[in-house]
Amino acid sequence: MLTIDTIHSISPPIIPLLATATESEYAPIVLTGVLLTLVVIYIASKLGGELSQIMNFPPVLGELIAGVVIGASALHLVVFPDSGATASDSVIVGILKFIDNLSPDAIISIFQSQSEVISVLAELGVIILLFEIGLESEIRELQKVGYQATIVACVGVAVPFGAGTVGLMLLFHVAAIPAIFAGAALTATSIGITSKVLSELGQLKSKEGQIIVGAAVIDDILGIIVLAVVASLAKTGEVDVLNVIYLILSATVFLVGAILLGKFFNQSFVAIANLLQTRGNLIVPAFIFAFFMAFIGNAIHLEAILGAFAAGLVLDETDKRKELDEQVKPIADIFVPIFFVTVGARVDLGVLNPVVPENREGLIIASFLIVVAIVGKIVTGWAVFGQPGINRLAIGIGMIPRGEVGLVFAAIGTASGVLDKPLQAAIIIMVILTTFLAPPFLRLVFGSSNLEKSAEPVEQADLAK
Amino acid sequence: MLTIDTIHSISPPIIPLLATATESEYAPIVLTGVLLTLVVIYIASKLGGELSQIMNFPPVLGELIAGVVIGASALHLVVFPDSGATASDSVIVGILKFIDNLSPDAIISIFQSQSEVISVLAELGVIILLFEIGLESEIRELQKVGYQATIVACVGVAVPFGAGTVGLMLLFHVAAIPAIFAGAALTATSIGITSKVLSELGQLKSKEGQIIVGAAVIDDILGIIVLAVVASLAKTGEVDVLNVIYLILSATVFLVGAILLGKFFNQSFVAIANLLQTRGNLIVPAFIFAFFMAFIGNAIHLEAILGAFAAGLVLDETDKRKELDEQVKPIADIFVPIFFVTVGARVDLGVLNPVVPENREGLIIASFLIVVAIVGKIVTGWAVFGQPGINRLAIGIGMIPRGEVGLVFAAIGTASGVLDKPLQAAIIIMVILTTFLAPPFLRLVFGSSNLEKSAEPVEQADLAK
Repeated sequence: MLTIDTIHSISPPIIPLLATATESEYAPIVLTGVLLTLVVIYIASKLGGELSQIMNFPPVLGELIAGVVIGASALHLVVFPDSGATASDSVIVGILKFIDNLSPDAIISIFQSQSEVISVLAELGVIILLFEIGLESEIRELQKVGYQATIVACVGVAVPFGAGTVGLMLLFHVAAIPAIFAGAALTATSIGITSKVLSELGQLKSKEGQIIVGAAVIDDILGIIVLAVVASLAKTGEVDVLNVIYLILSATVFLVGAILLGKFFNQSFVAIANLLQTRGNLIVPAFIFAFFMAFIGNAIHLEAILGAFAAGLVLDETDKRKELDEQVKPIADIFVPIFFVTVGARVDLGVLNPVVPENREGLIIASFLIVVAIVGKIVTGWAVFGQPGINRLAIGIGMIPRGEVGLVFAAIGTASGVLDKPLQAAIIIMVILTTFLAPPFLRLVFGSSNLEKSAEPVEQADLAK
Repeated sequence: MLTIDTIHSISPPIIPLLATATESEYAPIVLTGVLLTLVVIYIASKLGGELSQIMNFPPVLGELIAGVVIGASALHLVVFPDSGATASDSVIVGILKFIDNLSPDAIISIFQSQSEVISVLAELGVIILLFEIGLESEIRELQKVGYQATIVACVGVAVPFGAGTVGLMLLFHVAAIPAIFAGAALTATSIGITSKVLSELGQLKSKEGQIIVGAAVIDDILGIIVLAVVASLAKTGEVDVLNVIYLILSATVFLVGAILLGKFFNQSFVAIANLLQTRGNLIVPAFIFAFFMAFIGNAIHLEAILGAFAAGLVLDETDKRKELDEQVKPIADIFVPIFFVTVGARVDLGVLNPVVPENREGLIIASFLIVVAIVGKIVTGWAVFGQPGINRLAIGIGMIPRGEVGLVFAAIGTASGVLDKPLQAAIIIMVILTTFLAPPFLRLVFGSSNLEKSAEPVEQADLAK
């Protein structure tokens, strides 16, 4: 098998001008590769999502695991050069080579270009995902949730973040930046998964359900700010108190400022959408706004997803909300699976294979993260005050699943290059396990306390989709 | 200003392995560039489309011209290395450089990657456009149109193709492959534009209107086959009679075979969509099919768009047609403008500036193409037989606008690299002028013959969108 080193030693140095010429020559083959990769990603996402759904687990989990199966861990259909794969590792590049009889140089260039396009499509996928989450967040509802949810959310962010970061640094001697990143990945709570299970159990409107969902919404906002700050730290590579304070302030100002300015911008947005006469009169201005905010998020060295999330929150306040939701849905259906599947595909679970002795430390770190992830959220239930008889354990367990938000954290960490492979794999395992465990535990803890409620029919079919 | 040669001479040779490392390091900046480029493209497409609509011209024309304005001809916001632009020509790369203080090497790499991503997005745009055109083509209706429309369509493909190709070769000594390509670009007829104007005039159900629309549909199918054959010829670079026959046969077999097999596949598609329980149960399988057919189209060395068009025709036969149409619309609204705007942006109209003496031949070729484009379609009216009193001139004029289909031809020609810059610009000018001229001429020729009909209210608002 040709390794990248042998190819490198036999191929002449390529100057940028030549690279330009050849890359444009290979453009139709790059497109062929992108199309085939997308077909594979979509088939995997549907198979995984549906199987997961049948087994009563969240579809997003199935999409992630399908990604693991087709990626670096097993089938090698979708692999990426930035996780150390070479062109000869990629089955899809092998198919292209078979079809078009390509030279080794051509293969390297095509693999590179194709991976880059799929990576950007995945990044657009997570931007559109956060835009959609923002659109569905209903910031108006937040005012009703009250202090209880806010406190639960703050505890649920602070405890896992602190315990995770400090534990990794003190117990495992992980460097500050990756430790902070892994700690940040522990803070997420998935609204989608928790609210689906609560709705199945008929607990969505119970006191516990209201606190959990409210806290999960606030958690998202806090988590995205933490993520933006941590990702920015990773870019500069220094942890300096002044810089951290500056970043927290700028992320908060950006998000709150966008929402406040949005109140004025709302009217203009609706007016523009009503004025336009051609196709896409609503969706194109919405995407201009979302992508522009994402651009600003990146340009001020925070995160693109912070901007997209803010854009979603702002547009959720307009009268066009419902119409916009409906039009964003099919676009998200096409883009978001690329993100979930490639997150799974990038992970090499081989680094946690327990048979290999060197992997022990990675496995121990993974176990540590899982314990912190579970215990750090369960304690939040005891942060509720003045509510005698409330099911504190249920609240804590309801906050456990990391779901899609945890994946966003893991993906940004991987993309930033600060996490080593065992830590990446450990975070992904943590996200998978917390998401798997929470629904049955939640059924158990609610089911034992009030069985009579779970009999009532709920709008489950609606939320299951 | 740095030209590509000076950059090349001062920068050290980059080996592939190093390029990999740096490209992944620049990934966040590439994303920033892609986001900003998309914002610029969407704003341009909406401004152009709306202005065009206000002036009673087709929106797609405005999007194209907006692309010309922001592209290589004027503002240099969106430029591409394969049309000879360097990183320092791109205003967007300049903005990125300002934001992130980048080195010259970084700039070249980022410009390259960003352009490649936007190019693939544009190609996905034209694939989705053809999928949508296929979905709207209603092959069932074709059987009713009859011989008249078929003959008009065949004449409308054969005359401009023959006259254009032979004229370019004999009069202007253009080589065979580019001459055939330019001839092929003359064959298109835009269904959308013609049927919109006919509907405004209340002529959509007239005998003339029926023949024009029917012929335009058949024209599309013939045109896509011609395009696939010509593009394939361009790849091999040889015009060999056996190869041409083989290509025509394989393109026809592929399209007809896909449609026939589709009759069986239809049922399975609907069954699968009904079986799936998770989000995107209809749109994701539809895109798996469309992208897979596009992949096959590319893999057998025809064209991706031929496959996407066939997929659209097949899925148009299912019961899910209407629901699918609705979900494809927002996705097309987001992808298709990237195609139209970048087609315009790639053209350098400077090569047809009449003040520069060297441009004379290009200008003469452009004028020749425009004359062939108009006359070649007008004669089709006289191919109608056994219809005394029919408005032959109206039929001919109705076939003139090239619209989006002509642009697809121009874009594939440009991407294939066989057209030189003056010929590219000449084809774009031909598409713009025929699309501009047809609506007023059509109003004139129908208005004078039967004024009374144009008074009736028609479903214009519906089609105008």
